[in-house]
Amino acid sequence: MSQERAPRWGEPVFYRVIYGDTDRAGVVYYANYLRLFEMGRTEWMRNVLGTPYRRLEESGVLFPVVEAHIRYKAPAFYDDLLEIRTALEDASRVTLTFCYEIKRDGKLLVTGNTRHVAAGTDGRLTRIPRDLSYALSRFFEKTG
Amino acid sequence: MSQERAPRWGEPVFYRVIYGDTDRAGVVYYANYLRLFEMGRTEWMRNVLGTPYRRLEESGVLFPVVEAHIRYKAPAFYDDLLEIRTALEDASRVTLTFCYEIKRDGKLLVTGNTRHVAAGTDGRLTRIPRDLSYALSRFFEKTG
Amino acid sequence: MSQERAPRWGEPVFYRVIYGDTDRAGVVYYANYLRLFEMGRTEWMRNVLGTPYRRLEESGVLFPVVEAHIRYKAPAFYDDLLEIRTALEDASRVTLTFCYEIKRDGKLLVTGNTRHVAAGTDGRLTRIPRDLSYALSRFFEKTG
Amino acid sequence: MSQERAPRWGEPVFYRVIYGDTDRAGVVYYANYLRLFEMGRTEWMRNVLGTPYRRLEESGVLFPVVEAHIRYKAPAFYDDLLEIRTALEDASRVTLTFCYEIKRDGKLLVTGNTRHVAAGTDGRLTRIPRDLSYALSRFFEKTG
Repeated sequence: MSQERAPRWGEPVFYRVIYGDTDRAGVVYYANYLRLFEMGRTEWMRNVLGTPYRRLEESGVLFPVVEAHIRYKAPAFYDDLLEIRTALEDASRVTLTFCYEIKRDGKLLVTGNTRHVAAGTDGRLTRIPRDLSYALSRFFEKTG
Repeated sequence: MSQERAPRWGEPVFYRVIYGDTDRAGVVYYANYLRLFEMGRTEWMRNVLGTPYRRLEESGVLFPVVEAHIRYKAPAFYDDLLEIRTALEDASRVTLTFCYEIKRDGKLLVTGNTRHVAAGTDGRLTRIPRDLSYALSRFFEKTG
Repeated sequence: MSQERAPRWGEPVFYRVIYGDTDRAGVVYYANYLRLFEMGRTEWMRNVLGTPYRRLEESGVLFPVVEAHIRYKAPAFYDDLLEIRTALEDASRVTLTFCYEIKRDGKLLVTGNTRHVAAGTDGRLTRIPRDLSYALSRFFEKTG
Repeated sequence: MSQERAPRWGEPVFYRVIYGDTDRAGVVYYANYLRLFEMGRTEWMRNVLGTPYRRLEESGVLFPVVEAHIRYKAPAFYDDLLEIRTALEDASRVTLTFCYEIKRDGKLLVTGNTRHVAAGTDGRLTRIPRDLSYALSRFFEKTG
Protein backbone atom coordinates (compact mmCIF):
# COMPACT_ATOMS: atom_id res chain seq x y z
CA MET A 1 0.00 0.00 0.00
CA SER A 2 1.51 3.30 -1.01
CA GLN A 3 2.10 6.01 1.55
CA GLU A 4 -0.77 8.25 0.48
CA ARG A 5 -3.32 5.53 1.08
CA ALA A 6 -4.89 4.79 4.41
CA PRO A 7 -7.27 1.91 4.93
CA ARG A 8 -10.82 2.90 5.75
CA TRP A 9 -12.04 0.82 8.64
CA GLY A 10 -15.70 -0.07 8.73
CA GLU A 11 -17.90 -0.14 11.78
CA PRO A 12 -17.06 -3.06 14.07
CA VAL A 13 -18.96 -6.33 13.98
CA PHE A 14 -19.43 -8.02 17.34
CA TYR A 15 -19.33 -11.76 17.94
CA ARG A 16 -19.81 -13.68 21.18
CA VAL A 17 -17.48 -16.72 21.49
CA ILE A 18 -19.31 -20.04 22.01
CA TYR A 19 -18.07 -23.41 23.24
CA GLY A 20 -17.99 -24.57 19.63
CA ASP A 21 -15.32 -21.97 18.80
CA THR A 22 -12.95 -23.02 21.57
CA ASP A 23 -10.58 -25.97 21.85
CA ARG A 24 -9.31 -27.97 24.78
CA ALA A 25 -6.69 -25.31 25.56
CA GLY A 26 -9.66 -23.15 26.57
CA VAL A 27 -9.11 -20.61 23.78
CA VAL A 28 -10.60 -19.95 20.35
CA TYR A 29 -9.21 -22.54 17.90
CA TYR A 30 -6.75 -20.97 15.48
CA ALA A 31 -8.75 -21.74 12.33
CA ASN A 32 -11.88 -20.03 13.63
CA TYR A 33 -10.44 -16.53 13.30
CA LEU A 34 -10.79 -16.99 9.53
CA ARG A 35 -14.53 -17.35 10.16
CA LEU A 36 -14.44 -14.04 12.05
CA PHE A 37 -12.47 -12.43 9.21
CA GLU A 38 -15.23 -13.57 6.84
CA MET A 39 -17.88 -11.99 9.10
CA GLY A 40 -15.93 -8.73 9.09
CA ARG A 41 -15.34 -8.77 5.33
CA THR A 42 -18.99 -9.51 4.56
CA GLU A 43 -20.29 -6.70 6.72
CA TRP A 44 -17.65 -4.32 5.32
CA MET A 45 -19.02 -5.03 1.84
CA ARG A 46 -22.60 -4.60 2.96
CA ASN A 47 -22.10 -1.45 5.03
CA VAL A 48 -19.08 0.39 3.64
CA LEU A 49 -19.09 -0.66 0.01
CA GLY A 50 -22.87 -0.78 -0.03
CA THR A 51 -23.05 -4.03 -1.98
CA PRO A 52 -23.65 -7.36 -0.20
CA TYR A 53 -21.26 -10.06 -1.36
CA ARG A 54 -24.32 -12.12 -2.23
CA ARG A 55 -25.23 -9.52 -4.82
CA LEU A 56 -21.73 -9.52 -6.32
CA GLU A 57 -22.05 -13.27 -6.69
CA GLU A 58 -25.43 -12.92 -8.38
CA SER A 59 -23.80 -10.56 -10.87
CA GLY A 60 -21.33 -13.32 -11.71
CA VAL A 61 -18.20 -12.13 -9.90
CA LEU A 62 -16.66 -14.15 -7.08
CA PHE A 63 -13.65 -13.21 -4.96
CA PRO A 64 -11.97 -16.48 -3.97
CA VAL A 65 -9.15 -16.14 -1.45
CA VAL A 66 -5.60 -16.75 -2.67
CA GLU A 67 -3.68 -15.93 0.49
CA ALA A 68 -4.34 -15.50 4.20
CA HIS A 69 -2.06 -14.37 6.98
CA ILE A 70 -2.91 -14.37 10.70
CA ARG A 71 -0.95 -13.09 13.70
CA TYR A 72 -2.11 -14.42 17.07
CA LYS A 73 -1.08 -11.93 19.78
CA ALA A 74 -3.28 -12.99 22.68
CA PRO A 75 -5.99 -15.64 23.04
CA ALA A 76 -9.74 -15.08 22.99
CA PHE A 77 -11.76 -17.03 25.55
CA TYR A 78 -15.22 -18.53 25.92
CA ASP A 79 -18.04 -15.95 26.20
CA ASP A 80 -15.75 -13.09 25.16
CA LEU A 81 -17.51 -10.42 23.15
CA LEU A 82 -15.13 -9.88 20.25
CA GLU A 83 -14.93 -6.76 18.11
CA ILE A 84 -14.01 -7.40 14.48
CA ARG A 85 -12.75 -4.48 12.39
CA THR A 86 -12.15 -4.71 8.66
CA ALA A 87 -10.59 -2.43 6.10
CA LEU A 88 -9.76 -2.62 2.42
CA GLU A 89 -5.97 -2.53 2.45
CA ASP A 90 -5.34 -2.55 -1.27
CA ALA A 91 -7.12 -3.03 -4.58
CA SER A 92 -5.84 -3.51 -8.10
CA ARG A 93 -7.57 -4.42 -11.34
CA VAL A 94 -7.68 -8.06 -10.35
CA THR A 95 -7.10 -8.36 -6.59
CA LEU A 96 -8.54 -7.08 -3.32
CA THR A 97 -6.69 -7.22 0.01
CA PHE A 98 -8.57 -6.88 3.27
CA CYS A 99 -7.00 -6.42 6.70
CA TYR A 100 -8.59 -7.26 10.04
CA GLU A 101 -8.26 -6.53 13.73
CA ILE A 102 -9.94 -8.54 16.46
CA LYS A 103 -10.18 -6.98 19.90
CA ARG A 104 -11.69 -7.66 23.31
CA ASP A 105 -12.39 -4.63 25.46
CA GLY A 106 -10.03 -2.60 23.31
CA LYS A 107 -7.17 -5.06 23.61
CA LEU A 108 -5.81 -6.25 20.26
CA LEU A 109 -5.86 -10.07 20.10
CA VAL A 110 -5.47 -11.02 16.45
CA THR A 111 -4.59 -9.26 13.21
CA GLY A 112 -4.48 -10.58 9.68
CA ASN A 113 -5.19 -10.06 6.06
CA THR A 114 -6.63 -11.95 3.14
CA ARG A 115 -5.98 -11.44 -0.56
CA HIS A 116 -8.68 -12.24 -3.10
CA VAL A 117 -8.84 -12.38 -6.88
CA ALA A 118 -11.82 -11.68 -9.10
CA ALA A 119 -13.15 -14.77 -10.84
CA GLY A 120 -16.14 -15.62 -12.93
CA THR A 121 -18.56 -18.36 -11.96
CA ASP A 122 -16.53 -20.66 -14.21
CA GLY A 123 -13.58 -20.12 -11.86
CA ARG A 124 -11.50 -18.21 -14.41
CA LEU A 125 -9.70 -15.08 -13.33
CA THR A 126 -11.29 -11.90 -14.56
CA ARG A 127 -10.99 -8.15 -14.11
CA ILE A 128 -12.93 -6.45 -11.35
CA PRO A 129 -16.01 -4.92 -13.04
CA ARG A 130 -15.64 -1.21 -13.80
CA ASP A 131 -18.41 0.05 -11.51
CA LEU A 132 -17.14 -1.98 -8.57
CA SER A 133 -13.62 -0.84 -9.31
CA TYR A 134 -14.82 2.76 -9.28
CA ALA A 135 -16.64 2.24 -6.00
CA LEU A 136 -13.51 0.72 -4.48
CA SER A 137 -11.31 3.60 -5.66
CA ARG A 138 -13.14 5.87 -3.23
CA PHE A 139 -11.36 4.06 -0.40
CA PHE A 140 -7.98 5.08 -1.71
CA GLU A 141 -8.15 8.81 -2.08
CA LYS A 142 -4.94 10.54 -1.29
CA THR A 143 -4.69 11.43 2.33
CA GLY A 144 -1.20 12.96 2.35
CA MET B 1 -37.55 -51.62 11.50
CA SER B 2 -39.51 -54.86 11.46
CA GLN B 3 -38.38 -57.84 13.48
CA GLU B 4 -37.00 -59.82 10.56
CA ARG B 5 -34.64 -57.09 9.57
CA ALA B 6 -31.20 -56.62 11.02
CA PRO B 7 -28.97 -53.73 10.08
CA ARG B 8 -25.84 -54.65 8.19
CA TRP B 9 -22.92 -52.81 9.70
CA GLY B 10 -20.12 -51.81 7.38
CA GLU B 11 -16.43 -51.93 8.12
CA PRO B 12 -15.39 -49.31 10.65
CA VAL B 13 -13.93 -45.98 9.65
CA PHE B 14 -11.24 -44.62 11.95
CA TYR B 15 -10.75 -40.97 12.84
CA ARG B 16 -8.13 -39.35 15.06
CA VAL B 17 -9.52 -36.48 17.19
CA ILE B 18 -7.68 -33.15 16.67
CA TYR B 19 -7.64 -29.98 18.77
CA GLY B 20 -10.09 -28.45 16.32
CA ASP B 21 -12.72 -31.05 17.24
CA THR B 22 -12.55 -30.40 20.97
CA ASP B 23 -13.98 -27.60 23.09
CA ARG B 24 -12.83 -25.97 26.29
CA ALA B 25 -14.35 -28.79 28.35
CA GLY B 26 -11.57 -30.92 26.84
CA VAL B 27 -13.96 -33.17 24.92
CA VAL B 28 -15.23 -33.44 21.36
CA TYR B 29 -17.79 -30.65 20.77
CA TYR B 30 -21.30 -32.07 20.51
CA ALA B 31 -21.92 -30.90 16.94
CA ASN B 32 -18.82 -32.60 15.58
CA TYR B 33 -20.24 -36.10 15.96
CA LEU B 34 -22.51 -35.26 13.03
CA ARG B 35 -19.33 -34.80 10.98
CA LEU B 36 -18.25 -38.29 12.07
CA PHE B 37 -21.68 -39.67 11.17
CA GLU B 38 -21.21 -38.18 7.70
CA MET B 39 -17.81 -39.88 7.40
CA GLY B 40 -19.37 -43.19 8.37
CA ARG B 41 -22.35 -42.80 6.02
CA THR B 42 -20.16 -41.83 3.08
CA GLU B 43 -17.84 -44.80 3.49
CA TRP B 44 -20.83 -47.14 4.00
CA MET B 45 -22.14 -46.02 0.61
CA ARG B 46 -18.77 -46.41 -1.04
CA ASN B 47 -17.85 -49.77 0.48
CA VAL B 48 -21.09 -51.57 1.33
CA LEU B 49 -23.51 -50.16 -1.20
CA GLY B 50 -20.77 -49.88 -3.80
CA THR B 51 -21.81 -46.44 -4.99
CA PRO B 52 -20.04 -43.30 -3.77
CA TYR B 53 -22.47 -40.59 -2.70
CA ARG B 54 -20.72 -38.33 -5.21
CA ARG B 55 -21.90 -40.62 -7.98
CA LEU B 56 -25.51 -40.62 -6.70
CA GLU B 57 -25.38 -36.83 -6.80
CA GLU B 58 -24.05 -36.86 -10.34
CA SER B 59 -27.02 -39.03 -11.32
CA GLY B 60 -29.31 -36.31 -9.99
CA VAL B 61 -30.43 -37.79 -6.66
CA LEU B 62 -29.57 -36.13 -3.35
CA PHE B 63 -30.37 -37.39 0.14
CA PRO B 64 -30.82 -34.32 2.34
CA VAL B 65 -31.21 -35.03 6.04
CA VAL B 66 -34.62 -34.44 7.61
CA GLU B 67 -33.92 -35.65 11.14
CA ALA B 68 -30.94 -36.44 13.35
CA HIS B 69 -30.78 -37.95 16.81
CA ILE B 70 -27.63 -38.29 18.93
CA ARG B 71 -27.08 -39.94 22.32
CA TYR B 72 -23.90 -38.94 24.12
CA LYS B 73 -22.92 -41.71 26.53
CA ALA B 74 -19.31 -40.88 27.27
CA PRO B 75 -16.95 -38.18 26.00
CA ALA B 76 -14.26 -38.57 23.35
CA PHE B 77 -10.96 -36.82 24.05
CA TYR B 78 -8.10 -35.23 22.13
CA ASP B 79 -5.94 -37.69 20.17
CA ASP B 80 -8.45 -40.53 20.67
CA LEU B 81 -8.62 -42.90 17.73
CA LEU B 82 -12.36 -43.24 17.17
CA GLU B 83 -14.07 -46.12 15.42
CA ILE B 84 -17.19 -45.16 13.47
CA ARG B 85 -19.64 -47.89 12.49
CA THR B 86 -22.58 -47.29 10.21
CA ALA B 87 -25.57 -49.37 9.14
CA LEU B 88 -28.66 -48.84 7.06
CA GLU B 89 -31.44 -49.08 9.63
CA ASP B 90 -34.41 -48.70 7.36
CA ALA B 91 -35.32 -47.82 3.79
CA SER B 92 -38.62 -47.03 2.14
CA ARG B 93 -39.50 -45.73 -1.32
CA VAL B 94 -38.63 -42.22 -0.28
CA THR B 95 -36.50 -42.33 2.86
CA LEU B 96 -33.27 -43.87 4.17
CA THR B 97 -32.37 -44.15 7.85
CA PHE B 98 -28.79 -44.76 8.93
CA CYS B 99 -27.65 -45.63 12.43
CA TYR B 100 -24.18 -45.05 13.87
CA GLU B 101 -21.96 -46.17 16.72
CA ILE B 102 -18.79 -44.39 17.78
CA LYS B 103 -16.35 -46.29 19.97
CA ARG B 104 -12.89 -45.89 21.48
CA ASP B 105 -11.05 -49.11 22.30
CA GLY B 106 -14.32 -51.00 22.10
CA LYS B 107 -16.13 -48.69 24.51
CA LEU B 108 -19.34 -47.23 23.11
CA LEU B 109 -19.26 -43.42 23.35
CA VAL B 110 -21.99 -42.11 21.06
CA THR B 111 -24.90 -43.57 19.10
CA GLY B 112 -27.31 -41.90 16.74
CA ASN B 113 -29.27 -42.01 13.58
CA THR B 114 -30.12 -39.77 10.65
CA ARG B 115 -33.11 -39.92 8.34
CA HIS B 116 -32.81 -38.76 4.75
CA VAL B 117 -35.24 -38.22 1.89
CA ALA B 118 -34.61 -38.58 -1.81
CA ALA B 119 -34.67 -35.28 -3.67
CA GLY B 120 -33.85 -34.10 -7.15
CA THR B 121 -31.32 -31.38 -7.79
CA ASP B 122 -34.24 -28.93 -7.81
CA GLY B 123 -34.84 -29.84 -4.15
CA ARG B 124 -38.16 -31.57 -4.81
CA LEU B 125 -38.88 -34.87 -3.12
CA THR B 126 -38.66 -37.83 -5.42
CA ARG B 127 -38.72 -41.62 -5.28
CA ILE B 128 -35.50 -43.50 -4.74
CA PRO B 129 -34.42 -44.73 -8.23
CA ARG B 130 -35.35 -48.36 -8.89
CA ASP B 131 -31.82 -49.73 -9.22
CA LEU B 132 -30.69 -48.04 -6.01
CA SER B 133 -33.82 -49.28 -4.28
CA TYR B 134 -33.05 -52.81 -5.45
CA ALA B 135 -29.47 -52.53 -4.24
CA LEU B 136 -30.69 -51.33 -0.87
CA SER B 137 -33.18 -54.17 -0.52
CA ARG B 138 -30.26 -56.57 -0.20
CA PHE B 139 -29.60 -55.14 3.24
CA PHE B 140 -32.98 -56.19 4.50
CA GLU B 141 -33.18 -59.87 3.74
CA LYS B 142 -35.08 -61.82 6.30
CA THR B 143 -32.90 -63.00 9.10
CA GLY B 144 -35.60 -64.70 11.25
CA MET C 1 -43.60 -32.09 29.76
CA SER C 2 -46.85 -32.25 31.70
CA GLN C 3 -49.93 -30.55 30.35
CA GLU C 4 -49.92 -27.65 32.80
CA ARG C 5 -46.48 -26.57 31.79
CA ALA C 6 -45.71 -24.27 28.92
CA PRO C 7 -42.18 -23.45 27.85
CA ARG C 8 -41.15 -19.84 28.31
CA TRP C 9 -39.44 -18.67 25.17
CA GLY C 10 -36.70 -16.13 25.56
CA GLU C 11 -36.04 -13.22 23.28
CA PRO C 12 -34.68 -14.28 19.90
CA VAL C 13 -30.99 -14.30 19.08
CA PHE C 14 -30.10 -13.35 15.51
CA TYR C 15 -27.31 -14.90 13.48
CA ARG C 16 -26.19 -14.10 9.92
CA VAL C 17 -25.18 -17.22 7.93
CA ILE C 18 -21.63 -17.06 6.54
CA TYR C 19 -19.91 -19.11 3.82
CA GLY C 20 -18.24 -21.14 6.56
CA ASP C 21 -21.64 -22.42 7.76
CA THR C 22 -22.74 -23.67 4.36
CA ASP C 23 -21.79 -26.78 2.41
CA ARG C 24 -21.56 -27.53 -1.27
CA ALA C 25 -25.32 -28.10 -1.49
CA GLY C 26 -25.59 -24.34 -0.87
CA VAL C 27 -27.32 -24.74 2.51
CA VAL C 28 -26.26 -24.62 6.16
CA TYR C 29 -24.44 -27.87 7.01
CA TYR C 30 -26.55 -30.10 9.25
CA ALA C 31 -24.13 -30.10 12.19
CA ASN C 32 -23.99 -26.31 12.39
CA TYR C 33 -27.51 -26.00 13.75
CA LEU C 34 -26.14 -27.42 17.02
CA ARG C 35 -23.88 -24.35 17.13
CA LEU C 36 -26.97 -22.17 16.75
CA PHE C 37 -28.73 -24.14 19.48
CA GLU C 38 -25.77 -23.41 21.74
CA MET C 39 -26.02 -19.69 20.94
CA GLY C 40 -29.71 -19.75 21.83
CA ARG C 41 -29.19 -21.73 25.05
CA THR C 42 -26.38 -19.47 26.21
CA GLU C 43 -28.35 -16.29 25.68
CA TRP C 44 -31.43 -17.86 27.33
CA MET C 45 -29.35 -18.49 30.43
CA ARG C 46 -27.90 -14.99 30.39
CA ASN C 47 -31.13 -13.11 29.68
CA VAL C 48 -34.00 -15.24 30.98
CA LEU C 49 -32.38 -17.16 33.81
CA GLY C 50 -30.13 -14.23 34.63
CA THR C 51 -27.02 -16.35 35.09
CA PRO C 52 -24.42 -16.67 32.32
CA TYR C 53 -23.37 -20.27 31.76
CA ARG C 54 -19.80 -19.11 32.38
CA ARG C 55 -20.80 -18.24 35.93
CA LEU C 56 -22.46 -21.64 36.50
CA GLU C 57 -19.21 -23.24 35.40
CA GLU C 58 -17.20 -21.06 37.76
CA SER C 59 -19.45 -22.27 40.58
CA GLY C 60 -18.48 -25.84 39.69
CA VAL C 61 -21.58 -27.06 37.87
CA LEU C 62 -21.47 -28.07 34.23
CA PHE C 63 -24.36 -29.20 32.04
CA PRO C 64 -22.94 -31.64 29.49
CA VAL C 65 -25.34 -32.73 26.77
CA VAL C 66 -26.61 -36.32 26.85
CA GLU C 67 -29.02 -36.22 23.93
CA ALA C 68 -29.81 -34.02 20.96
CA HIS C 69 -32.60 -34.20 18.43
CA ILE C 70 -32.94 -32.05 15.31
CA ARG C 71 -35.70 -31.82 12.70
CA TYR C 72 -34.74 -30.17 9.44
CA LYS C 73 -37.87 -28.78 7.79
CA ALA C 74 -36.42 -26.34 5.28
CA PRO C 75 -32.87 -25.25 4.47
CA ALA C 76 -31.18 -22.04 5.56
CA PHE C 77 -29.05 -20.29 2.93
CA TYR C 78 -25.98 -18.06 2.77
CA ASP C 79 -26.50 -14.54 4.14
CA ASP C 80 -29.85 -15.47 5.73
CA LEU C 81 -30.53 -13.65 8.97
CA LEU C 82 -31.68 -16.46 11.25
CA GLU C 83 -33.81 -16.05 14.35
CA ILE C 84 -33.04 -18.53 17.12
CA ARG C 85 -35.62 -19.02 19.88
CA THR C 86 -34.94 -21.09 22.97
CA ALA C 87 -37.09 -22.32 25.85
CA LEU C 88 -36.61 -24.54 28.86
CA GLU C 89 -38.82 -27.49 28.04
CA ASP C 90 -38.35 -29.51 31.20
CA ALA C 91 -36.24 -29.62 34.34
CA SER C 92 -35.80 -32.25 37.02
CA ARG C 93 -33.39 -32.55 39.92
CA VAL C 94 -30.67 -33.77 37.59
CA THR C 95 -31.57 -32.86 34.02
CA LEU C 96 -32.50 -29.84 31.92
CA THR C 97 -34.14 -30.04 28.52
CA PHE C 98 -34.08 -27.08 26.14
CA CYS C 99 -36.07 -26.75 22.93
CA TYR C 100 -35.23 -24.55 19.97
CA GLU C 101 -36.80 -23.02 16.91
CA ILE C 102 -34.85 -21.50 14.03
CA LYS C 103 -36.71 -19.22 11.63
CA ARG C 104 -36.05 -16.96 8.66
CA ASP C 105 -38.55 -14.17 8.09
CA GLY C 106 -41.03 -15.97 10.32
CA LYS C 107 -40.75 -19.26 8.45
CA LEU C 108 -39.83 -22.22 10.66
CA LEU C 109 -36.74 -23.99 9.28
CA VAL C 110 -35.41 -26.20 12.07
CA THR C 111 -36.60 -27.39 15.48
CA GLY C 112 -34.84 -29.47 18.07
CA ASN C 113 -34.08 -30.12 21.66
CA THR C 114 -31.11 -30.99 23.82
CA ARG C 115 -31.07 -32.75 27.19
CA HIS C 116 -28.34 -31.97 29.70
CA VAL C 117 -27.32 -33.42 33.05
CA ALA C 118 -25.72 -31.61 35.97
CA ALA C 119 -22.12 -32.65 36.58
CA GLY C 120 -19.26 -31.49 38.76
CA THR C 121 -15.95 -30.42 37.31
CA ASP C 122 -14.78 -34.00 37.94
CA GLY C 123 -17.39 -35.15 35.44
CA ARG C 124 -19.54 -36.95 38.02
CA LEU C 125 -23.27 -36.52 37.91
CA THR C 126 -24.63 -34.29 40.63
CA ARG C 127 -27.90 -32.64 41.64
CA ILE C 128 -28.76 -29.23 40.28
CA PRO C 129 -27.87 -26.74 43.06
CA ARG C 130 -30.89 -25.66 45.14
CA ASP C 131 -30.84 -21.99 44.20
CA LEU C 132 -30.56 -22.74 40.50
CA SER C 133 -33.30 -25.33 40.84
CA TYR C 134 -35.50 -22.73 42.51
CA ALA C 135 -34.77 -20.20 39.78
CA LEU C 136 -35.65 -22.77 37.13
CA SER C 137 -38.94 -23.68 38.81
CA ARG C 138 -40.25 -20.22 37.92
CA PHE C 139 -40.39 -21.33 34.31
CA PHE C 140 -42.87 -24.07 35.08
CA GLU C 141 -45.73 -22.34 36.83
CA LYS C 142 -49.05 -23.90 36.11
CA THR C 143 -50.69 -22.30 33.15
CA GLY C 144 -53.86 -24.43 32.99
CA MET D 1 16.10 -21.06 7.26
CA SER D 2 19.78 -21.03 6.40
CA GLN D 3 21.01 -22.51 3.15
CA GLU D 4 22.52 -25.63 4.67
CA ARG D 5 19.24 -26.68 6.16
CA ALA D 6 16.60 -28.63 4.33
CA PRO D 7 13.22 -29.45 5.82
CA ARG D 8 12.63 -33.13 6.46
CA TRP D 9 9.19 -34.03 5.21
CA GLY D 10 7.31 -36.71 7.09
CA GLU D 11 5.18 -39.41 5.57
CA PRO D 12 1.95 -38.05 4.14
CA VAL D 13 -1.33 -38.09 6.05
CA PHE D 14 -4.43 -38.69 3.95
CA TYR D 15 -7.79 -37.06 4.50
CA ARG D 16 -11.04 -37.51 2.59
CA VAL D 17 -13.02 -34.27 2.14
CA ILE D 18 -16.58 -34.42 3.52
CA TYR D 19 -19.59 -32.17 2.91
CA GLY D 20 -18.88 -30.51 6.25
CA ASP D 21 -15.53 -29.24 4.96
CA THR D 22 -16.97 -27.58 1.87
CA ASP D 23 -18.85 -24.33 1.41
CA ARG D 24 -21.48 -23.22 -1.05
CA ALA D 25 -18.84 -22.48 -3.68
CA GLY D 26 -18.39 -26.27 -3.79
CA VAL D 27 -14.82 -26.15 -2.46
CA VAL D 28 -13.13 -26.69 0.90
CA TYR D 29 -13.76 -23.62 3.10
CA TYR D 30 -10.59 -21.56 3.51
CA ALA D 31 -10.40 -21.95 7.31
CA ASN D 32 -10.51 -25.74 7.14
CA TYR D 33 -6.99 -26.05 5.72
CA LEU D 34 -5.74 -25.02 9.17
CA ARG D 35 -7.46 -28.17 10.47
CA LEU D 36 -5.54 -30.18 7.87
CA PHE D 37 -2.30 -28.44 8.87
CA GLU D 38 -3.00 -29.52 12.47
CA MET D 39 -3.49 -33.12 11.31
CA GLY D 40 -0.18 -33.00 9.49
CA ARG D 41 1.70 -31.38 12.37
CA THR D 42 0.33 -33.86 14.90
CA GLU D 43 1.29 -36.90 12.85
CA TRP D 44 4.72 -35.38 12.12
CA MET D 45 5.32 -35.17 15.85
CA ARG D 46 4.08 -38.69 16.43
CA ASN D 47 5.91 -40.34 13.55
CA VAL D 48 8.99 -38.25 12.77
CA LEU D 49 9.79 -36.70 16.13
CA GLY D 50 8.57 -39.79 17.94
CA THR D 51 6.69 -37.86 20.61
CA PRO D 52 2.93 -37.35 20.38
CA TYR D 53 1.90 -33.76 21.06
CA ARG D 54 -0.32 -35.13 23.81
CA ARG D 55 2.77 -36.33 25.62
CA LEU D 56 4.51 -32.94 25.27
CA GLU D 57 1.45 -31.37 26.85
CA GLU D 58 1.49 -33.86 29.69
CA SER D 59 5.12 -32.88 30.33
CA GLY D 60 3.95 -29.28 30.74
CA VAL D 61 5.03 -27.75 27.43
CA LEU D 62 2.53 -26.35 24.96
CA PHE D 63 3.22 -24.89 21.52
CA PRO D 64 0.54 -22.27 20.88
CA VAL D 65 0.49 -20.80 17.39
CA VAL D 66 1.60 -17.19 16.96
CA GLU D 67 1.43 -16.89 13.19
CA ALA D 68 -0.12 -18.74 10.25
CA HIS D 69 0.23 -18.19 6.54
CA ILE D 70 -1.73 -19.98 3.82
CA ARG D 71 -1.45 -19.83 0.03
CA TYR D 72 -4.44 -21.17 -1.89
CA LYS D 73 -3.30 -22.26 -5.34
CA ALA D 74 -6.18 -24.47 -6.45
CA PRO D 75 -9.38 -25.61 -4.75
CA ALA D 76 -10.03 -28.99 -3.14
CA PHE D 77 -13.42 -30.54 -3.79
CA TYR D 78 -15.88 -32.87 -2.06
CA ASP D 79 -14.71 -36.48 -1.78
CA ASP D 80 -11.16 -35.57 -2.79
CA LEU D 81 -8.52 -37.69 -1.08
CA LEU D 82 -6.02 -35.09 0.10
CA GLU D 83 -2.38 -35.74 0.87
CA ILE D 84 -0.96 -33.60 3.67
CA ARG D 85 2.82 -33.29 3.99
CA THR D 86 4.52 -31.57 6.91
CA ALA D 87 8.07 -30.57 7.67
CA LEU D 88 9.86 -28.69 10.42
CA GLU D 89 11.04 -25.58 8.63
CA ASP D 90 12.94 -23.94 11.46
CA ALA D 91 13.51 -24.25 15.20
CA SER D 92 15.12 -21.91 17.71
CA ARG D 93 15.32 -22.01 21.49
CA VAL D 94 11.79 -20.69 21.76
CA THR D 95 10.00 -21.17 18.45
CA LEU D 96 9.11 -23.92 15.99
CA THR D 97 8.02 -23.30 12.41
CA PHE D 98 6.26 -25.99 10.40
CA CYS D 99 5.54 -25.90 6.70
CA TYR D 100 2.83 -27.82 4.87
CA GLU D 101 1.83 -28.96 1.42
CA ILE D 102 -1.60 -30.25 0.48
CA LYS D 103 -1.93 -32.18 -2.75
CA ARG D 104 -4.52 -34.16 -4.71
CA ASP D 105 -3.19 -36.77 -7.10
CA GLY D 106 0.21 -35.10 -6.97
CA LYS D 107 -1.13 -31.65 -7.81
CA LEU D 108 -0.19 -28.99 -5.26
CA LEU D 109 -3.32 -27.21 -3.98
CA VAL D 110 -2.34 -25.37 -0.82
CA THR D 111 0.89 -24.48 0.97
CA GLY D 112 1.44 -22.76 4.27
CA ASN D 113 3.33 -22.51 7.47
CA THR D 114 2.65 -21.98 11.15
CA ARG D 115 4.96 -20.59 13.80
CA HIS D 116 4.66 -21.74 17.40
CA VAL D 117 6.23 -20.69 20.68
CA ALA D 118 6.96 -22.85 23.69
CA ALA D 119 4.77 -22.02 26.69
CA GLY D 120 4.12 -23.52 30.08
CA THR D 121 0.64 -24.56 31.18
CA ASP D 122 0.37 -21.11 32.80
CA GLY D 123 0.65 -19.61 29.31
CA ARG D 124 4.04 -18.01 29.93
CA LEU D 125 6.69 -18.28 27.28
CA THR D 126 9.44 -20.73 28.11
CA ARG D 127 12.45 -22.34 26.47
CA ILE D 128 12.03 -25.54 24.56
CA PRO D 129 13.18 -28.35 26.92
CA ARG D 130 16.74 -29.52 26.27
CA ASP D 131 15.91 -33.09 25.25
CA LEU D 132 13.23 -31.94 22.82
CA SER D 133 15.61 -29.30 21.47
CA TYR D 134 18.22 -31.98 20.94
CA ALA D 135 15.73 -34.23 19.17
CA LEU D 136 14.70 -31.36 16.92
CA SER D 137 18.31 -30.51 16.01
CA ARG D 138 18.52 -33.80 14.14
CA PHE D 139 16.22 -32.31 11.51
CA PHE D 140 18.72 -29.61 10.67
CA GLU D 141 21.89 -31.43 9.86
CA LYS D 142 23.95 -29.78 7.20
CA THR D 143 22.99 -30.95 3.77
CA GLY D 144 25.28 -28.75 1.66
